[in-house]
Amino acid sequence: MELWFSEYHLPGLRYSLKVKNFLYTGQSKYQRLDFFETYEFGKVFTLDGIVMLTEKDEFVYHEMMAHLPSLVHPAPKRALVIGGGDGGTIRELLKHESYESLDLCEIDKEVVDKCKIYFPETASKLDDPKVNLYFEDGIKFVQNKKNYYDIICVGSTDPIGPAVGLFKEDFYRMCYDALTDDGILIAQSESIWYHGDIIKEVNKAFKKIFPEVKLAVASLICYQSGFWSFTLGSKKYNLLTDIDENRAKRIEATCKYYNLDIHKSCFYLPNFAKEFVK
Amino acid sequence: MELWFSEYHLPGLRYSLKVKNFLYTGQSKYQRLDFFETYEFGKVFTLDGIVMLTEKDEFVYHEMMAHLPSLVHPAPKRALVIGGGDGGTIRELLKHESYESLDLCEIDKEVVDKCKIYFPETASKLDDPKVNLYFEDGIKFVQNKKNYYDIICVGSTDPIGPAVGLFKEDFYRMCYDALTDDGILIAQSESIWYHGDIIKEVNKAFKKIFPEVKLAVASLICYQSGFWSFTLGSKKYNLLTDIDENRAKRIEATCKYYNLDIHKSCFYLPNFAKEFVK
Repeated sequence: MELWFSEYHLPGLRYSLKVKNFLYTGQSKYQRLDFFETYEFGKVFTLDGIVMLTEKDEFVYHEMMAHLPSLVHPAPKRALVIGGGDGGTIRELLKHESYESLDLCEIDKEVVDKCKIYFPETASKLDDPKVNLYFEDGIKFVQNKKNYYDIICVGSTDPIGPAVGLFKEDFYRMCYDALTDDGILIAQSESIWYHGDIIKEVNKAFKKIFPEVKLAVASLICYQSGFWSFTLGSKKYNLLTDIDENRAKRIEATCKYYNLDIHKSCFYLPNFAKEFVK
Repeated sequence: MELWFSEYHLPGLRYSLKVKNFLYTGQSKYQRLDFFETYEFGKVFTLDGIVMLTEKDEFVYHEMMAHLPSLVHPAPKRALVIGGGDGGTIRELLKHESYESLDLCEIDKEVVDKCKIYFPETASKLDDPKVNLYFEDGIKFVQNKKNYYDIICVGSTDPIGPAVGLFKEDFYRMCYDALTDDGILIAQSESIWYHGDIIKEVNKAFKKIFPEVKLAVASLICYQSGFWSFTLGSKKYNLLTDIDENRAKRIEATCKYYNLDIHKSCFYLPNFAKEFVK
């Protein structure tokens, strides 16, 4: 039998992976979850048919999400991850010894439960004593926190369905308020090639709120176009010049994608993308 | 009618574009040529069913190919492009006023003839008086030149079929001999994510021949994984520190991808790719 999974990266662009075997299919309160094994990318996790995670490249997203802000803040103690139920960002954050407490707010408990079973390497640190799991709506959760987190990482799904509110200015402002005076917010902001309008909107919203805003890019293989963006907002530190190079060198030794050169250069945008952050 | 073009980026990974209409299909002496219009990437050109060029992203490849070497050499006068029958690299090279003569060696005259019709913007400079077209085998052509070119750009197809010889040490050595004493060779060297073995082999061969070798990367959308590599070999100039920043600034003003920051940082590799160039 030949079995293929397809995702429409654009209405006229389809990306298809040959499936070795299915591991799990289920419907939670919020969305459909599928885990399957592919020939090219190892295990794959999809939500409502959209790839969230593959074994082959998950490290890129999680390393960038965790280390870009954590290596600019001189000694982050508390971080909040919104929507990263697979646990990959938590795993990377825990590499920084200064963290005393990490909160993960994932709306869908099923994501955590199933990732622990099917992506044990990614979810490996979700039971760490420093980690607290909250199965709640990210917006409501962050609304109740003030001046509390050093770092907030927003790993939302695409801005359709349950995650649409995570791309709004109001939400970023709540994050600002939930951050300490020298806090940093990082949010995934879609593909440089296909989602210029979303990046522009996120960038504009961040700039209304944070004195220092930067757009970072990274190469991965499972998301649209393979060139993914992250928007960072910082209250106090300079995202380019305040990188702690000694710590970065120690962290890079544990990484498959991240290194200090990547950190310094991930903010350099191709000309066509510069207009998104004007 | 719904019409889709598919390319297998890997045996278990298929990339499919919805086709608006077909422009041309033909068989040359060497290969099958297809030109068609897609919904997402505009016009697309394929050879034997493999995407060579799309309207949406062709600038990335050609800007990198032309400007990385031309902005390190202080005043390149003569360049050779092997296999770039679409004319995109020639168009970019001509932005450098120092060039007196540009040779294009394309094995398949049909590629040039049809690109002039279906990609007139890319092929726009092929009739420039500085440009000489040769419809010959690249290996034989370069073999007959000694100490002649300042820059050689090898824009081969994948290392299967007619282009396989363009990935061999013998060929790079002929290029070395065809270059002047301070010449620079650049060759496309496939995907960072999927072709580590090819990159390693090319890098090893370059290092046997050139004192200075670097691997550059760029994001595009039409080739496998979207993260493409170029291997550069230089006889005399330092590929990182000898960039002519003033000229680079003038060139970047004409580009959609290339800029000086991109030039400086395109040699920074993710950790997993560093082992390819050890």
